[in-house]
Amino acid sequence: MKRSFERQNNQLRPVTMTRHFIKHPEGSVLVEFGDTRVICTASVEESVPSFLRGKGAGWVTAEYAMLPRATHTRSPREAAKGKQSGRTLEIQRLIGRSLRAVTDMAKLGERTIYIDCDVIQADGGTRTASITGAWVALADAVQTLLRQGRIAENPLKEAVAAVSVGIVGGEALLDLDYTEDSGAEVDMNFVMTSSGRFVEIQGTAEAEPFTIEQMDAMRSLAMEGISRLFAIQQETLQP
Amino acid sequence: MKRSFERQNNQLRPVTMTRHFIKHPEGSVLVEFGDTRVICTASVEESVPSFLRGKGAGWVTAEYAMLPRATHTRSPREAAKGKQSGRTLEIQRLIGRSLRAVTDMAKLGERTIYIDCDVIQADGGTRTASITGAWVALADAVQTLLRQGRIAENPLKEAVAAVSVGIVGGEALLDLDYTEDSGAEVDMNFVMTSSGRFVEIQGTAEAEPFTIEQMDAMRSLAMEGISRLFAIQQETLQP
Amino acid sequence: MKRSFERQNNQLRPVTMTRHFIKHPEGSVLVEFGDTRVICTASVEESVPSFLRGKGAGWVTAEYAMLPRATHTRSPREAAKGKQSGRTLEIQRLIGRSLRAVTDMAKLGERTIYIDCDVIQADGGTRTASITGAWVALADAVQTLLRQGRIAENPLKEAVAAVSVGIVGGEALLDLDYTEDSGAEVDMNFVMTSSGRFVEIQGTAEAEPFTIEQMDAMRSLAMEGISRLFAIQQETLQP
Amino acid sequence: MKRSFERQNNQLRPVTMTRHFIKHPEGSVLVEFGDTRVICTASVEESVPSFLRGKGAGWVTAEYAMLPRATHTRSPREAAKGKQSGRTLEIQRLIGRSLRAVTDMAKLGERTIYIDCDVIQADGGTRTASITGAWVALADAVQTLLRQGRIAENPLKEAVAAVSVGIVGGEALLDLDYTEDSGAEVDMNFVMTSSGRFVEIQGTAEAEPFTIEQMDAMRSLAMEGISRLFAIQQETLQP
Amino acid sequence: MKRSFERQNNQLRPVTMTRHFIKHPEGSVLVEFGDTRVICTASVEESVPSFLRGKGAGWVTAEYAMLPRATHTRSPREAAKGKQSGRTLEIQRLIGRSLRAVTDMAKLGERTIYIDCDVIQADGGTRTASITGAWVALADAVQTLLRQGRIAENPLKEAVAAVSVGIVGGEALLDLDYTEDSGAEVDMNFVMTSSGRFVEIQGTAEAEPFTIEQMDAMRSLAMEGISRLFAIQQETLQP
Amino acid sequence: MKRSFERQNNQLRPVTMTRHFIKHPEGSVLVEFGDTRVICTASVEESVPSFLRGKGAGWVTAEYAMLPRATHTRSPREAAKGKQSGRTLEIQRLIGRSLRAVTDMAKLGERTIYIDCDVIQADGGTRTASITGAWVALADAVQTLLRQGRIAENPLKEAVAAVSVGIVGGEALLDLDYTEDSGAEVDMNFVMTSSGRFVEIQGTAEAEPFTIEQMDAMRSLAMEGISRLFAIQQETLQP
Repeated sequence: MKRSFERQNNQLRPVTMTRHFIKHPEGSVLVEFGDTRVICTASVEESVPSFLRGKGAGWVTAEYAMLPRATHTRSPREAAKGKQSGRTLEIQRLIGRSLRAVTDMAKLGERTIYIDCDVIQADGGTRTASITGAWVALADAVQTLLRQGRIAENPLKEAVAAVSVGIVGGEALLDLDYTEDSGAEVDMNFVMTSSGRFVEIQGTAEAEPFTIEQMDAMRSLAMEGISRLFAIQQETLQP
Repeated sequence: MKRSFERQNNQLRPVTMTRHFIKHPEGSVLVEFGDTRVICTASVEESVPSFLRGKGAGWVTAEYAMLPRATHTRSPREAAKGKQSGRTLEIQRLIGRSLRAVTDMAKLGERTIYIDCDVIQADGGTRTASITGAWVALADAVQTLLRQGRIAENPLKEAVAAVSVGIVGGEALLDLDYTEDSGAEVDMNFVMTSSGRFVEIQGTAEAEPFTIEQMDAMRSLAMEGISRLFAIQQETLQP
Repeated sequence: MKRSFERQNNQLRPVTMTRHFIKHPEGSVLVEFGDTRVICTASVEESVPSFLRGKGAGWVTAEYAMLPRATHTRSPREAAKGKQSGRTLEIQRLIGRSLRAVTDMAKLGERTIYIDCDVIQADGGTRTASITGAWVALADAVQTLLRQGRIAENPLKEAVAAVSVGIVGGEALLDLDYTEDSGAEVDMNFVMTSSGRFVEIQGTAEAEPFTIEQMDAMRSLAMEGISRLFAIQQETLQP
Repeated sequence: MKRSFERQNNQLRPVTMTRHFIKHPEGSVLVEFGDTRVICTASVEESVPSFLRGKGAGWVTAEYAMLPRATHTRSPREAAKGKQSGRTLEIQRLIGRSLRAVTDMAKLGERTIYIDCDVIQADGGTRTASITGAWVALADAVQTLLRQGRIAENPLKEAVAAVSVGIVGGEALLDLDYTEDSGAEVDMNFVMTSSGRFVEIQGTAEAEPFTIEQMDAMRSLAMEGISRLFAIQQETLQP
Repeated sequence: MKRSFERQNNQLRPVTMTRHFIKHPEGSVLVEFGDTRVICTASVEESVPSFLRGKGAGWVTAEYAMLPRATHTRSPREAAKGKQSGRTLEIQRLIGRSLRAVTDMAKLGERTIYIDCDVIQADGGTRTASITGAWVALADAVQTLLRQGRIAENPLKEAVAAVSVGIVGGEALLDLDYTEDSGAEVDMNFVMTSSGRFVEIQGTAEAEPFTIEQMDAMRSLAMEGISRLFAIQQETLQP
Repeated sequence: MKRSFERQNNQLRPVTMTRHFIKHPEGSVLVEFGDTRVICTASVEESVPSFLRGKGAGWVTAEYAMLPRATHTRSPREAAKGKQSGRTLEIQRLIGRSLRAVTDMAKLGERTIYIDCDVIQADGGTRTASITGAWVALADAVQTLLRQGRIAENPLKEAVAAVSVGIVGGEALLDLDYTEDSGAEVDMNFVMTSSGRFVEIQGTAEAEPFTIEQMDAMRSLAMEGISRLFAIQQETLQP
């Protein structure tokens, strides 16, 4: 099977990030991993959830959604159904945890940054694109706060990015698109920091349990792909 | 007060429509009225709501939403709150009625076209931009059905488009942006067909009841603006 | 087609209003437009929604519902379904806006008047009967507040009333009953103040777009009908 | 303490029933127990819940609600809150069971009769007034079915009626109004059939547990009051 | 028909109560009435519902649920359906009222005791087992509060217990199991205090209305059974 | 810090499984990992979700909940709140996927096995205890189906079990209890099959990103612990 964009097994799809894509938010990015396109915004509010009130620390939280026709066939709109699916909740919790892992909440002060990741077109890897783009939107929001003198020091300790890997037809592949993901035996998502450490790992045997060797092969691919994502984030943030 | 884009009272903001903005749907358009930007998609499904089953007729229905940070301050996500607001329901019902008014349901056959209007950036006039863009997405979906031989005749009887007008500081203005809309004494939305007839009229005195003369002045502005929108729709649909 | 109550095209159905229909509320009216019967109550509470707190201004808001068997066939109860329909939300927002348009919120002081319009029997025009009756209930509640010395001046700037008009079989008719409404090509609702100005206009082409001449014909009928409603409101409020 | 309507301890409030109060339903009654006023309607539908499908038997079910301002202070509307309270569910289950107890479901055939009890004014005893009035609405709906030849035999085996009793200030009282009910030590509701048997008994010690002698005293009062209600039901049903 | 556990008509099933069944709560009991098994816990929180705030009085409230497969066939989980059934709400309101009837709220002070009754295995009589076991859990929680010096006096005025009775095949039976309950003509639940007085009575004619003689027979059985339950509660609470 | 049950870093807490704990389900187990206690039931239904209908294949799905006072402080009941939390949905999706990974759906035939995991007492590791116990309940349900001749071959391909590991105070620990879990820098859950392969891996840096060496150390501990769990499952299933 030929991979999309004529990629090797260890290659990412073309990745682009368009800053300031939406004009109102403190930070906003359109992130594209091949045909997967996600609008990530970072919105600052001068309040914190009740469990943090009066403690001097801030909060970062995330919400995720897909437009109904981001996918091949239309999915019912969650707002119309009246609840978010388990998959949605799982993904937005993952995005939130990933960003909090690199944020110094004391430096952020008593304010909340809401990350919204809205997938306008889906082709596999929406959660990893969301995390990778959301960090750039968060970085821009933090710059806004610094520029406005609302915070004194940058609360971002390092960068965070994410990528999917999988076993498809017995081979380990980096950054699965939708077709690969649908046929994968195993699907893993890695979230790492720019210091080369792990924040989140989620692996699922979709069709067949996997061996320790397969796990190590996927991990190597992921580490390689994520370093490329850190470079793209840095280029994007160049003035 | 100077109008945005240095407009006269009877001028529209710059209007652009980008076809095929999202790759999966049968029709999709990014419509922009100045800084208001809406993704409109048209999705075809081979079934109809139960009240139409077995009658040989089709259906067109619409859903509307705004990304949480489409606006100046972030609004809670409707999917997270677990229900759509009255405003959302009102707008999506309006979009659906407007498009059904120009569709011959017998020619569409027993299938449903779902229109999704998702506002990614809001600056006033989101419902009128949605209707105007949605008609183009619908026209593209209909072309897809014709090309695939799934329908024999074009079910679209004519075009439909919409614009807002209002009384601001005592003057009648065409196509209000957010600042104008917030300060308007009166806000009206007109939906018309390309044969020069009316499909929907909604007028609200936000601050002060209005006279019959003011209503007529707004109506004239709206008729003028909508003819310009029909021209833009036709240009957009040129191959 | 003969009209109900042997009416001419420009005649209202018999309209009656029974004050003090329910004993607990500060104001209550049973309003009847022919066979359409609505219980309107006005309830005063000494608090305001949070967005108004501490501003010295009051609020008027409305809720609307139909008993399940107000209609020809039974409709599921909204409380049992767990949500209000889009139609219900749309109507109650309209009632609220109409009444607020004639109320001076500063004179009302920091209190809320809740209007409840519950349709016990429906035969077309439930929203226009609701607005017309609700204003009388509101006027009675205001009298209660004045009599009790809780407010110093009457916050009602003028009266408000509403009527439906439509195009049925090509002819413009005033105050449609259910049979006329079901078969109407066009359905419009006008809300006006006793100074002859407009508060709300909602027109919908149910079957066929309408011309500017038809719109003007409907508007004339509505203005004529609404003046008759103002007279009935005044008679009702005679001691 | 003087009782309302200058009643003795063993007297009902004035009870009236107005048949055909609402024009659309197959049966409808406005029932009044003093100042408690309830609209009861009976609606016939030609289908049964899924657990009964194909068994040849019918079903009777009930729903109950109060208008928001039926009470001294306004209660939030259940449709707006998005759920029915435990009290509402409890009462409507009681009404349904009471009516089913006197209905021969085989004679009713595969159809459902929906009973709607909507309290427009509350002054104690809304559930017992509902049951008593609902049986008359049900009887009228059954007459409609017989007259239309949709059923061959009357499925009503006997009449059913209900009354509240209580211990107030140490004394057993029949048919408590709101003031008595609020101050009652014990509150009991009895539902009986016209053959003098019991269908439902619900007794609650609001303030103080009660003795077997008190229970017997309340039961005697209830039996006396309910026989009077059966007489009123029969008078109401006279042609 | 032979009764389970070879019982006479006036005999309870074997009743056991295991204290301290769950380690975290201030009081917890596994109560078993034959094969009906319920975990009852009592949790103390240092706050009261808003309607009681600042009045110096406490509150006792209860929640009830069944594990999905506590019954012969699996019932959908209420948390997954998104609402509690009418039956659940009715039972938990009954449990709460029963326990409040024997609690001196002033002595409890401004705190709430939450009772949770979770049925892990159901074989009839789950609500009566819940009340009987919950009182023991409540007594243990009260002991905890006394021992910790958080309250000065025992707020429990007396014990409360409950049992079901019914008419099955024309005979009055005590403490129905599931098979008996399913076939019962009449089902009654009695809640009494250890001083021999009644707190709650709920009787329902499932299949056939019942006579005053049958009611008295059931009441006698219930009184007899409940005295046995008080003895078991006391034995259980022996140190 | 001393570990509970005087354990070494690579030791499990005492694990016990009590089969046939609940009498109605086709399979049921009380699983205990130290003080964490979960009731796991397996319920067979002769139908499949709509997406599988007519394909000859079966389905295994899971639901998870905690009793409100399974934890140190009482958590609001999800059924009362009207929705399951993101955490709950995440865990029950994990349990379902883990069991499906070892089940041959064709051999199961068109039926669904519902797994219910209800935590009655929580002390860390509720999801891993649930998976480990649920497999035994599933195995018992499968035996029931085989014994009744409803299936011809055992659809369970191998066993599945799960354990948590973490980094606490810089050290890798097996099978964290609540105290350890609350203070952990990293928390990972491994789900493996008895053939030594991986089904699910979920790792989260709660406080500090982790290195590849730490990940490998945790993985080794998990593999060691899980083999012990497979032995306990087999002992449990001895007749």
